Amino acid sequence: MKIMPDRLRALATSLLESRNASPQAAALQADLLVEAELRGLPSHGLQRLPLLLSRLEKGLADGRTQGAATWSRQAFLSVDGERGLGPVVLMGAMRRLKQRLPQAGLAVAAIRNANHIGMLAYYAEAAARDGLIAIVMSTSEALVHPFGGTQAMLGTNPLAIGIPSDDRPFVLDLATSVVSMGKIRNHALRDLPIPPGWAVDAEGRPTLDPVAAQDGAIAPFGDAKGYGLGLAIELLVAALAGSPPSPDVRGTLDDDHPANKGDLLVLIDPSAGSGAIPALTAYLDGLRLSRPLEPTRPVAVPGDGARGRRAAAMDGGIVLPQPLFEQLLALEAA
Amino acid sequence: MKIMPDRLRALATSLLESRNASPQAAALQADLLVEAELRGLPSHGLQRLPLLLSRLEKGLADGRTQGAATWSRQAFLSVDGERGLGPVVLMGAMRRLKQRLPQAGLAVAAIRNANHIGMLAYYAEAAARDGLIAIVMSTSEALVHPFGGTQAMLGTNPLAIGIPSDDRPFVLDLATSVVSMGKIRNHALRDLPIPPGWAVDAEGRPTLDPVAAQDGAIAPFGDAKGYGLGLAIELLVAALAGSPPSPDVRGTLDDDHPANKGDLLVLIDPSAGSGAIPALTAYLDGLRLSRPLEPTRPVAVPGDGARGRRAAAMDGGIVLPQPLFEQLLALEAA
Repeated sequence: MKIMPDRLRALATSLLESRNASPQAAALQADLLVEAELRGLPSHGLQRLPLLLSRLEKGLADGRTQGAATWSRQAFLSVDGERGLGPVVLMGAMRRLKQRLPQAGLAVAAIRNANHIGMLAYYAEAAARDGLIAIVMSTSEALVHPFGGTQAMLGTNPLAIGIPSDDRPFVLDLATSVVSMGKIRNHALRDLPIPPGWAVDAEGRPTLDPVAAQDGAIAPFGDAKGYGLGLAIELLVAALAGSPPSPDVRGTLDDDHPANKGDLLVLIDPSAGSGAIPALTAYLDGLRLSRPLEPTRPVAVPGDGARGRRAAAMDGGIVLPQPLFEQLLALEAA
Repeated sequence: MKIMPDRLRALATSLLESRNASPQAAALQADLLVEAELRGLPSHGLQRLPLLLSRLEKGLADGRTQGAATWSRQAFLSVDGERGLGPVVLMGAMRRLKQRLPQAGLAVAAIRNANHIGMLAYYAEAAARDGLIAIVMSTSEALVHPFGGTQAMLGTNPLAIGIPSDDRPFVLDLATSVVSMGKIRNHALRDLPIPPGWAVDAEGRPTLDPVAAQDGAIAPFGDAKGYGLGLAIELLVAALAGSPPSPDVRGTLDDDHPANKGDLLVLIDPSAGSGAIPALTAYLDGLRLSRPLEPTRPVAVPGDGARGRRAAAMDGGIVLPQPLFEQLLALEAA
């Protein structure tokens, strides 16, 4: 079924407020989930809400704190998320970093003990729309095996980079796994085999069975290079935020544990550098107009696809599975 | 033929000094080239030296400057490389950033107008051995096509990340192309076809012909994700350093143009954050001991392979093609 985004935003906000989230925190968390739906990323959308509500009820998430932030150095913000909602803690950190940019030029926030920050593109895009460059990283439970390995030892460790342009910002948002666990679950639900190279089973054997894959591990994207990047994110986050490596991470997929993964946000003011943004806009347009591999599929810049999907869903509504919508309505009545 | 590293270092230093490089600059540039040979990366080794000497002779490289550096903000160093040698300008910037870390926690140098910085792992490892985290990026001439495209619109845009550990540092160094142009040239020399997916020809058709590939474009690594990362590096460097996007870059592969690509160096003091390095060392050891895909090939951490190759070459010498060695000797006699 299709539902208009405003209705879903109001429903999610009301559900979060009824679990003691502040009006501002509820509105921000709801907006993040609806924006993921609008961009065609349901794995980071409203299907995350029931778990989050349960975490609020159990005290594993606190909808009233932005976390406790300390400038450990001029350009280094250490943040204890205090079980706050991920987007609330992260956007709070972004506001603080922003205040520091006129003096410092760039600054980083290292965040521990915050809940799931969801779709990273949200933050990268928010910064780019403000004329700033953002680099966002996060860790997760161990789901990914090393290149040449077979055990789940790394998180899906996403990376987002937002860069302003004169018209459409560049917004990259990628997991360092070849595919999300959500997509593998979806293959299992539809009883479809997964493609070769996606996953190994619990014994470390390459598998096409999506059920066996869920007990095993997902491959990194891009072989050794993607593995290296995912591991770099794992180490950067842990080293700076003080969060544990992913085999000891809990709390982004369950409602039994505090969330102990870490997040990093680097914010840079491009006006501290060259101010070359106009030249970049022209370059990106040239890229979009360059000769495509398939004549009917123009070359895209990261962020273009999501922007198109968002515009369509803003007009036509968000496709939501009926059972999920009914579950949310029942939670509202409860 | 095999030659001991000390002899090559002395030869390269003497050649650079004879082209008016200062003793310190010559020693650093020579060390970078020899370290690339030691790590089994000849494409960034001594084969680069004749071109560099010619650039020094023509005034396209200046072996006596570290560039002019200005703190445009507390944590943002803007560097005009003034045609200096790449490693001289970059290591000079690293020293300045390091002095700023006790106050700032992290700092970035954005460098334009420096010559080729060569193997990025050199800088990442130097920082990590000092107990610091380094992120290094660079751009190049356009050699890589976008995902879904067929024209060379991006540089090979390498990324290196160095992270200290209690014993062996993590040193990631990757080009965002699926393969280097050097490797494609090597296939052409040996009259071997290149694997599917590496490159397209000048008309944008996928090709297995290494000669045709040299007139075309190389694929990004990791499909859309690797393309996105390479493009992010392209934009970050250009936005902050003020260097042009890669279609307008010249001077890292020729001796006709000033080098106008850009470089970024981010330096972070982990003690500003959690100080979690010991936990990371244990995690990395666990990763190395985790179950491999092939029983005889243990899981590796980025940096391990290069470290092993370096140790072997330090003992047994560097394998150098005889024509290259003779060319260097002739240049010394000239």
